[in-house]
Amino acid sequence: MTWVDLNADLGEGFGVWRLGDDEAMLGIVTSANVACGFHAGDPAGLLRVCQAAADRGVRIGAQVSYRDLAGFGRRFIDATAEDLRADVVYQIGALQALARAAGSTVGYVKPHGALYNTIVTHREQAAAVADAVRSMDTGLPVLGLAGSVFFEEAEKRGLRTVAEAFADRAYRPDGQLVSRREPGAVLHDPAVIAERVATMVTGGQLTAVDGSTVPVRAESVCVHGDSPGAVRIAAAVADRLRADGVELRAFC
Amino acid sequence: MTWVDLNADLGEGFGVWRLGDDEAMLGIVTSANVACGFHAGDPAGLLRVCQAAADRGVRIGAQVSYRDLAGFGRRFIDATAEDLRADVVYQIGALQALARAAGSTVGYVKPHGALYNTIVTHREQAAAVADAVRSMDTGLPVLGLAGSVFFEEAEKRGLRTVAEAFADRAYRPDGQLVSRREPGAVLHDPAVIAERVATMVTGGQLTAVDGSTVPVRAESVCVHGDSPGAVRIAAAVADRLRADGVELRAFC
Amino acid sequence: MTWVDLNADLGEGFGVWRLGDDEAMLGIVTSANVACGFHAGDPAGLLRVCQAAADRGVRIGAQVSYRDLAGFGRRFIDATAEDLRADVVYQIGALQALARAAGSTVGYVKPHGALYNTIVTHREQAAAVADAVRSMDTGLPVLGLAGSVFFEEAEKRGLRTVAEAFADRAYRPDGQLVSRREPGAVLHDPAVIAERVATMVTGGQLTAVDGSTVPVRAESVCVHGDSPGAVRIAAAVADRLRADGVELRAFC
Amino acid sequence: MTWVDLNADLGEGFGVWRLGDDEAMLGIVTSANVACGFHAGDPAGLLRVCQAAADRGVRIGAQVSYRDLAGFGRRFIDATAEDLRADVVYQIGALQALARAAGSTVGYVKPHGALYNTIVTHREQAAAVADAVRSMDTGLPVLGLAGSVFFEEAEKRGLRTVAEAFADRAYRPDGQLVSRREPGAVLHDPAVIAERVATMVTGGQLTAVDGSTVPVRAESVCVHGDSPGAVRIAAAVADRLRADGVELRAFC
Repeated sequence: MTWVDLNADLGEGFGVWRLGDDEAMLGIVTSANVACGFHAGDPAGLLRVCQAAADRGVRIGAQVSYRDLAGFGRRFIDATAEDLRADVVYQIGALQALARAAGSTVGYVKPHGALYNTIVTHREQAAAVADAVRSMDTGLPVLGLAGSVFFEEAEKRGLRTVAEAFADRAYRPDGQLVSRREPGAVLHDPAVIAERVATMVTGGQLTAVDGSTVPVRAESVCVHGDSPGAVRIAAAVADRLRADGVELRAFC
Repeated sequence: MTWVDLNADLGEGFGVWRLGDDEAMLGIVTSANVACGFHAGDPAGLLRVCQAAADRGVRIGAQVSYRDLAGFGRRFIDATAEDLRADVVYQIGALQALARAAGSTVGYVKPHGALYNTIVTHREQAAAVADAVRSMDTGLPVLGLAGSVFFEEAEKRGLRTVAEAFADRAYRPDGQLVSRREPGAVLHDPAVIAERVATMVTGGQLTAVDGSTVPVRAESVCVHGDSPGAVRIAAAVADRLRADGVELRAFC
Repeated sequence: MTWVDLNADLGEGFGVWRLGDDEAMLGIVTSANVACGFHAGDPAGLLRVCQAAADRGVRIGAQVSYRDLAGFGRRFIDATAEDLRADVVYQIGALQALARAAGSTVGYVKPHGALYNTIVTHREQAAAVADAVRSMDTGLPVLGLAGSVFFEEAEKRGLRTVAEAFADRAYRPDGQLVSRREPGAVLHDPAVIAERVATMVTGGQLTAVDGSTVPVRAESVCVHGDSPGAVRIAAAVADRLRADGVELRAFC
Repeated sequence: MTWVDLNADLGEGFGVWRLGDDEAMLGIVTSANVACGFHAGDPAGLLRVCQAAADRGVRIGAQVSYRDLAGFGRRFIDATAEDLRADVVYQIGALQALARAAGSTVGYVKPHGALYNTIVTHREQAAAVADAVRSMDTGLPVLGLAGSVFFEEAEKRGLRTVAEAFADRAYRPDGQLVSRREPGAVLHDPAVIAERVATMVTGGQLTAVDGSTVPVRAESVCVHGDSPGAVRIAAAVADRLRADGVELRAFC
C-alpha cells in the first residue's frame, strides 16, 4: 500500500499573536514543522503546540530559521557559517527540550522561509545547516527540496534526506517552483489541489505551468497552515488521498 | 580528603560584545554556569565557550534567566508560571544541544540574576523553574541558595540541590547575603577573600558583618567572572584551597 | 454641547502578526493609542496605521510600554527610573517620526498594559514616565487614570492630564476597576456598554458592581480594539453617544 | 583656513555591554555617529552618550542600521524598501528625542555597517534610506561615500550629501576601499595614519595600495572608536591636523 506524509508549519504565533489554526491542522497532518523561536514561537506557545501534537500522535519537526522575528524569517540574512550552524543547533535543542516536556521528541529538521530558499543553492549556508543537524547525536533526517545543494551537503554527512512536494504551488517544466512573484504561482481551489496531490503521490508526476508532465518524487507533501482556506485545503487533500487508498503517516 | 566545586558565570557576551575573561576563568573554575541566550549569549559565542569548557574538562551548567537582554536578566519580571516554565525548558534544551555539539553535556542548572534572587522567596516562580528542570528526562541537579523556597520546591520534585556560598560577598548574622545596596556588601581583596573561602570550606563557617560566626554549608563556591580583578580573585581562592589540601572538582 | 473623546489601542501587531481590526476601529474612534515597538508594532506596520489615522483625521497618541514583545507589555518589569525614562523618550520619538512621515504628529502619551497599571501606585516609575514626557519639547498631555500617582507626578511637572473611563469594565464602589481576575470584570453586551458610557458622559456617574452610584469624570472613553466583538461594541458606543447629542472629538 | 570634521561611531554598547571608550573619543571628534538601538544602543546608554556629546559640543548624528543586534548590523538583510524606510524613520526619531532630552539635536544621518556597504550599490535600499531621511521635516544631511548610489538617491531628493574618507583604511587606485578580507586593508600605525589624513585634507589626495596617487574629497574623516589603539590613533590624527593649521569642526 502506498503512503505519504502530510506536513505543515505550526506554532508560528508569538506571545499574544496567533497565526493559522494549529488545532485544526493537527487533526489533519501527520508531521508538524514547529517553529523554534527565531522567526516565530514563544516557548509557552511552542510547548502547547508540542503537547497538542503529542496528544494526537503527530510527529514533531524543528522548523529552524534565521534570527528574524520582525521579518518572520522571510528575509535572506548574510550570516556566517559559524553563526548559522550554532543558531540551528540552538533552535533544535530548544525544541527537543519542549517536545520532551510534552512527552514526545523532535523527529526531523525542516528549514524555514528564506533559509529554506537560500540553501537550495547557497553552499556555505547549506553546509552550515547540515553540520548543525549532524552535530545532534540523534542524526535527525532533514525535510526539504530534492535536488537542492542542501540535500547534497546533508547526504555527504550521512543524513537521511526526505523530499517534499508542495500541494498548492505551481511548478515549472524543470521541476522547480514558479516564483511567488509570478501570477498563478499559488493554487487556491481545494478540489484542484487535492486532485493534483493525488496524481503526485499515486502517479509520481504533475502538470507544470506550460502543460507538460513533470516527474515528482515526494515522501511528504507540504500543506500551508496560515493562508485563508488552509484548513479546508488540507482536509480536501487528506480526504482525497485516503479515498485513493493512500495511507497518511509520518515519514519517521 | 575535602573537596569543593568552584563555579563562575561564563558566556555572558552577546554578538560583538564581551564580558569578563572566559578563557582565563576556565583555567581556574571546575563548573561553568553558561548563559543560555535570554540574558546574554548568542549561540555561536555559547558554542565557543562550551567547546573551551569541554576541552579543559570544566563542567557545563545552564544559567537560565528571564528573557531580558536589555536588562541582563537583572530585573524582576512578573512572568506567569506557564511562561517561565517553558522559558526555562527552552533555554536548558538550547544549551544541551550546544554542549553536545562541543562533545559535552549540561550537568546542572543555575538560575541567573533577578530570577535567582526572586525564587529565594517567590513560590510560584520557584515551582515553575523546578517543574522545568524536572521535565528534562535527565533529572539535572540545581545549584542555588540553601534554605531558599527554590530548594524546597526542587526537593519536593526529587531534584538534587547543591548549595553554594559566595566568595566575595558579606553575610548577615542570619546567614543571608548583605544587600548590594549596602556598603561593604562586596569584598575586593584577593587575600581576604581567599582566607574567607578557606574557612568556609574547611571550617564550615564564616564571619558575618557584625563579627559573629555563622555556619555555612557549601558544595560549591561562586566566584565572579566579570568584575575588575575577577581572574586574580578566583586564582587566589583556588590556590589557597589547594594549599589547604582541598581538592577542586565539579559536584557532578 | 457636550463632547467626549473615544480612544483605542491600535498598531498592536508585529511583522506578519495582526491584532484587532485597525481599519474598522479608525472609522469609529477619535484618538488612536499607537504602539511604539516595545510591546508591539514593527515600524512599517506603525507607519501604515499612522497613515491611516492621518487620512481619517484621527489623533495619534504614543502608547509607551515596558520593553517586552514576548509578554506584550503585560508583565511588570522592575526597571530603574533611568532606564524607564530613556525607554519612554525613545518610544515617543520613534512614533513622532513615523507620525510626521505620515503627515501628522503625536498628540499625547498613554502608558500601556503593566506600565499603565504599575504607575497608578508606583511613584518612582510614575515619575520616570512623567520626566520622559516632560523632556519632549512639546509638553505632550498624558492620558490615564484620574487619581493615580502618575497624574500627580505629571501635574507636578506641568503636564496636562486627561482622565479616561473604560467602556467595558466593571467598577468598584471606590471608583477603581474590578480586577480582571474577578468574575464580571469585563462587560460584553454592546447595548449594556453603550448605555453605561452614555450615563458616564452625560450624567457623570456609573453604577458600581455593588449597585451603588459612583461619580466619574472622563474626557476620554477607552474602547478595546482587540477583543471579539470589539468593533461592534465601539460602534454601539459611538452611535449611542451621537444619538444623545454628544460630540465625538479628540481631546487635543 | 582649511577645516575638516572628524567623525566616529559611538554609543555602540547595549545594556551592560560596552564597546570602545566613548568618553575619550568625545574629547577628540567633532561629530558622533550615535547608534539608534537596531545594531547597538539601549535607550539609557544612548541618552548618556547624547548628554556627554551635548556637554562637549560634539555634533550628534543618527547611525541607522538593519535590525540585527546579534549581528551588530554587519550582515546584509534583504529587507523590503517599505520595511527599511520605516525602520530608518523610527531610528532617527528615537535618537532625535534622546538628543532633545539631552539638550541637543540630531544633525545628520549615517548608515551603519552592512547597510552602509549595501547602499553603495543597491539602488532599492539606497532609495529607501534616502526616502526615510527626506520624510523627516528637518531635511537632514547624510554622511557617506562619494560616488555611491546612496548619494545619487539622496541628491535626487534634495538632501545635502557629505563625503567622508577613512583614516585607517587602504584605498584602491580607483578610489574605493580595499576589502577588509584582503591583507593590509586596515592601517594601524598612528603616525602613518596621521600623515595620511593630513595629506588627504590639505592635499586632496592619498596614496593607493599600488603606490599611485588618488584624488580624494572629504568634508569629514572617519576614525574608528572600537579598535585597539582607537583613541591613540584618533588623537594623533587630530593633533597632526591642528599642527598643520586645519580647523576641526562639525560639518553642520
